[in-house]
Amino acid sequence: MIRPGAFFEDFAVGDRWETGGYTFTEAEIVDFAFRYDPQPFHIDVEAAKASIYGGLIASGFQTLSVCFRLVWQTAVLSNNMGGRGLDELRWPRAVRPGDTVHVVVEVLAAEPSSRADRGNLRLRYTGLNQRGETVLEATLLHVVRRRPPAD
Amino acid sequence: MIRPGAFFEDFAVGDRWETGGYTFTEAEIVDFAFRYDPQPFHIDVEAAKASIYGGLIASGFQTLSVCFRLVWQTAVLSNNMGGRGLDELRWPRAVRPGDTVHVVVEVLAAEPSSRADRGNLRLRYTGLNQRGETVLEATLLHVVRRRPPAD
Repeated sequence: MIRPGAFFEDFAVGDRWETGGYTFTEAEIVDFAFRYDPQPFHIDVEAAKASIYGGLIASGFQTLSVCFRLVWQTAVLSNNMGGRGLDELRWPRAVRPGDTVHVVVEVLAAEPSSRADRGNLRLRYTGLNQRGETVLEATLLHVVRRRPPAD
Repeated sequence: MIRPGAFFEDFAVGDRWETGGYTFTEAEIVDFAFRYDPQPFHIDVEAAKASIYGGLIASGFQTLSVCFRLVWQTAVLSNNMGGRGLDELRWPRAVRPGDTVHVVVEVLAAEPSSRADRGNLRLRYTGLNQRGETVLEATLLHVVRRRPPAD
């Protein structure tokens, strides 16, 4: 069972946990996108209506960042030492203002590092909206601290 | 030659272009991370000094978002209809306050879509700092509009 404050040794392949939710507001969608992803369908409600999406949608980079924040908030990864990267990120469905997203995390692999104080995790993130539809899938590569030896 | 306003037909495998730069400030690193990635080494200068990084580093999600923004700003992808996802994202080196990052983009693949009005691009993004060191590598999957038929 993975709990807040887990160390590398506590993660086993197949373990899962779930985050709380976050409601994407129009304000935050436009604000994030105006800085980082100012495509018309992310920052301009009128242009978004005329686009293939039929309305404003969140930047996929915001969706990714929010999903990570939700996972971080569970404190299960509080011994995370960093991220090496991620693989196979997909956004199967757009996130729209008012959508509430939460994340299910599954441990795909847990392998010792060449460095004694840490191990490598492959974690599958699945972001789901309030209807249970997948809005994000990605495999994140985390480096997590091992339990320090008792003094 | 790819130019601003390019349509799908204008992209050929091997084509490259380069963005301008962006200087990561301490303020923006902490601000982004406080919302989306509040790990101590992204938001707390003192904790970051004591971490394995020896100082504050930018969230990898911010680095990704900034790299996309720089690419968007070239207007080469102004006919982008959306993103399907990304593969093999790595952050080989941390981004620190004061670092200036720009992106080199290379076309890895350009394939027609089943829909007549668009095509699929695989683009390799390489983010480089002011010393030429790679801070981000990723393959992004873009959907780009085809040139509309002349009236």
